[in-house]
Amino acid sequence: MAVYTEVSDEALVAYLAEYDLGSLVAFRGIAEGVENSNFSLRTTTGDFILTLYERRVDPVELPWFLGLMEHLAERGISCPLPVKARDGAALRQLCGRHAAITTFLPGIWPRRVRPEHCAPLGTALAALHEAGADYAPTRPNALGPSSWAPLLARCLPDADAIWPGLGTELERAHARILATWPNSLPIGHIHADLFPDNVFFLDGRLSGLIDFYFAATDILAYDIAVCINAWCFEPDISLNVTRARALLAAYGATRPLLAAERSALPALCQGAALRFALTRVFDWINTPAGAMVTRKDPMPYIRRLRFHLTAQNEHAYGL
Amino acid sequence: MAVYTEVSDEALVAYLAEYDLGSLVAFRGIAEGVENSNFSLRTTTGDFILTLYERRVDPVELPWFLGLMEHLAERGISCPLPVKARDGAALRQLCGRHAAITTFLPGIWPRRVRPEHCAPLGTALAALHEAGADYAPTRPNALGPSSWAPLLARCLPDADAIWPGLGTELERAHARILATWPNSLPIGHIHADLFPDNVFFLDGRLSGLIDFYFAATDILAYDIAVCINAWCFEPDISLNVTRARALLAAYGATRPLLAAERSALPALCQGAALRFALTRVFDWINTPAGAMVTRKDPMPYIRRLRFHLTAQNEHAYGL
Repeated sequence: MAVYTEVSDEALVAYLAEYDLGSLVAFRGIAEGVENSNFSLRTTTGDFILTLYERRVDPVELPWFLGLMEHLAERGISCPLPVKARDGAALRQLCGRHAAITTFLPGIWPRRVRPEHCAPLGTALAALHEAGADYAPTRPNALGPSSWAPLLARCLPDADAIWPGLGTELERAHARILATWPNSLPIGHIHADLFPDNVFFLDGRLSGLIDFYFAATDILAYDIAVCINAWCFEPDISLNVTRARALLAAYGATRPLLAAERSALPALCQGAALRFALTRVFDWINTPAGAMVTRKDPMPYIRRLRFHLTAQNEHAYGL
Repeated sequence: MAVYTEVSDEALVAYLAEYDLGSLVAFRGIAEGVENSNFSLRTTTGDFILTLYERRVDPVELPWFLGLMEHLAERGISCPLPVKARDGAALRQLCGRHAAITTFLPGIWPRRVRPEHCAPLGTALAALHEAGADYAPTRPNALGPSSWAPLLARCLPDADAIWPGLGTELERAHARILATWPNSLPIGHIHADLFPDNVFFLDGRLSGLIDFYFAATDILAYDIAVCINAWCFEPDISLNVTRARALLAAYGATRPLLAAERSALPALCQGAALRFALTRVFDWINTPAGAMVTRKDPMPYIRRLRFHLTAQNEHAYGL
């Protein structure tokens, strides 16, 4: 479910009148996505995505996200380009929400990941990191390591209701990960949520990256760790080393990894698994039973975390 | 939420290979609709809707629905036209579901009904009825008057939990409506669910009718009664006679109403209100609290029913 706000036809027509995009042809809610309301919008001049920003996105940060997308798109990254209205502003108001129109990207996200997806993913991720290097504004990662302790504290009282012993397991993992967390790796703008449903492919080639609303300024290689977690595990939560190797090799061919980045991979993968485990545990505990949002099972990320905690070094990932 | 079945990219590409529609360009789940999974599909030859049929639709009836849409589209009704694959069949299988591709209709459904919508609606409904006249196969209305008694019986044990006295109120209304139900009005193929979200408008003109999966062979004027209920009430559940008059006048200009049809309007409107009240009460009682489906409040239809039970004759609707 990804339409939280209904847009009346009158409001939409009035909104579109602020742009040079021609007149309305079609408008449909998009089912994918969980954070914002997304609509596919066709006008007489082309296809676009209309996004109404809901809950988790802080409006103060929207200019940073839209600026990053514009910066990346100008440098050839295939990502949604915010479309400016006649007054030059891309970020506007619609139905009491902040709203923006972005370009439509062709492609389909892979429902079933295959090894052939992982090299294009690695190339695109490295290109994203390089293209972002000269985007000057920064955004601290609101779900980075410093967020994990308070998030964990809010999960602990109910964590064992999900799985006996889960609270203690998360506490121990958290302490161990923070103790070994790398502090001198290259920093840049990361996507931070590059799951398969945010990556489009067309005719076997990567055609677009979407949903930059978790993007932040953080350790570049952490973005690789997020992708290893999201793309390189089998349904039984065993690591598919072929995929991880393809991802890492393709990334390194565009932006060679430092030795320190390679050796930090186990810690970064542990941290990425913990980050998604914590938000899923939190959402699991705090999503009312009747809510319209699908709760994501946290256990697959707990099990990834366990795997990464056993990784001795980067060779565990095929390096 | 209207994507119940995930379609893998491989399955989709294999499915499309059975058609002469070119290759895949984009694929997004559509948020609207509650009965089936709908996707907007773009290929190198155009835009289409892919529907996977879920639960309430009986697969045995799908050829009737698709045949009706094809029949209507050939006669100039702007409705989805089922697209045939190379083997000539429009109804196929995908991901363990019956599936079909239909043409894409431009337009936007009116989130807020205005009187100007109601004349085009009446014209389109009459044109739909006329165009369907020579579609020979018939389908009994599974939600017609004979279905109301068993549906009511299943609602009664829990109806009073929604509203004290609701069970008795529904029983009395049901008995009265059946006693006065017209039995010699013109019959034909009706849409039977022509709510605003099934009617698209573009530049002030009606551009399409969608979602024919409640269509059936029943009293033609009953379809008008469904529309009066769905389009002609204010938020406070008072009848907007201006809208009803516009709807009826425009309908009658294309397909003149018989005196018997006009005088049956109160009974037909009562029946239509009861039909939606009953299914909503049933769904309200039987939807688990954690389900991903929005339960629709039955009370607005109970209140419409009360209004129609007070209507002395067709003049109550502006005739």
